[in-house]
Amino acid sequence: MPHIPLPPEHIGIRGAMAFRPETAKPLNEIVEILLAGPSTLTKGERELIATYVSSRNCTFFCASIHGAIAAAHLGGNEALVKQVKTDFTQADISPKLKALLVIAGKVQQDGKLVTTADVDAARKLGATDLEIHDTVLIAAVFCLCNRYVDGLATWAPDDPAFYRQRAALVAENGYAASTLTGPTK
Amino acid sequence: MPHIPLPPEHIGIRGAMAFRPETAKPLNEIVEILLAGPSTLTKGERELIATYVSSRNCTFFCASIHGAIAAAHLGGNEALVKQVKTDFTQADISPKLKALLVIAGKVQQDGKLVTTADVDAARKLGATDLEIHDTVLIAAVFCLCNRYVDGLATWAPDDPAFYRQRAALVAENGYAASTLTGPTK
Repeated sequence: MPHIPLPPEHIGIRGAMAFRPETAKPLNEIVEILLAGPSTLTKGERELIATYVSSRNCTFFCASIHGAIAAAHLGGNEALVKQVKTDFTQADISPKLKALLVIAGKVQQDGKLVTTADVDAARKLGATDLEIHDTVLIAAVFCLCNRYVDGLATWAPDDPAFYRQRAALVAENGYAASTLTGPTK
Repeated sequence: MPHIPLPPEHIGIRGAMAFRPETAKPLNEIVEILLAGPSTLTKGERELIATYVSSRNCTFFCASIHGAIAAAHLGGNEALVKQVKTDFTQADISPKLKALLVIAGKVQQDGKLVTTADVDAARKLGATDLEIHDTVLIAAVFCLCNRYVDGLATWAPDDPAFYRQRAALVAENGYAASTLTGPTK
């Protein structure tokens, strides 16, 4: 039961966004640019960063929906997403992505924990300055989204099928289009 | 020394924003709407919420600049800003703002800590649903900004005079105009 009267037809962050469209617009834009815009990181990699941070913040809605979108971008590999959430060091992902997840995990806790050595390690594995920047900002943005979703006690369905269905639409059409066609219900 | 080569003429979050203008635009917009847009909370009250969260996250740049902007909106009352950072329960602010700061402090830590009782307490002291929403989102947005600033190790001057000078411009002209006129150096 949300702390304030959010539109019941919208779940998760969409309920909060429907309540305050003025702030929803730029928030959607920043997520769209970071997760679905042009990047040398794949969409699957960026969704894994978002999922990992949301999982560390124990925000069920964000971890579930972005985990499902990551899986959709990764050929339906839900086991890989689960492995990244559980222990990414043992996951079948690139060493570069592992180095970026180290940075993302530290940003989730406290940005001051990121060291020059962390950044050098990512760079040696091929990470560009922009990829490092975007990793920090994706992690920071999901610390926002997670708190927004949890702080208002927005509603999140338990059924994994809901997230798979919504994820397929986002993976196919992007965030903005999927919102317009109304699959957030 | 920032972790990636940020433009040296821009300090704090402005350096990160100059590095990635695409994401800076929506991020500036959301801060502008929440802190300087139409609201039944005063600008001073909203800046105090941003300052309190940044102070709890120990992000020197954000706590200093928003503390200085809050003071500028509160007739130069720097002692009040310091009291809010140190122990807001003893500060000369309204009971409603104290109840909203309780919520903001919980969001800073973990949104799931916000209880129905916290929200009811704020409502009984006159807080509207929109004020509660915006308090949660301001706290969440500053958890983003703090991590963005710290995670890239952006540069922050020590001198309080710098923040007072910049704050006067923001308080007078708003965020967007102050950025355009270049006082972020």
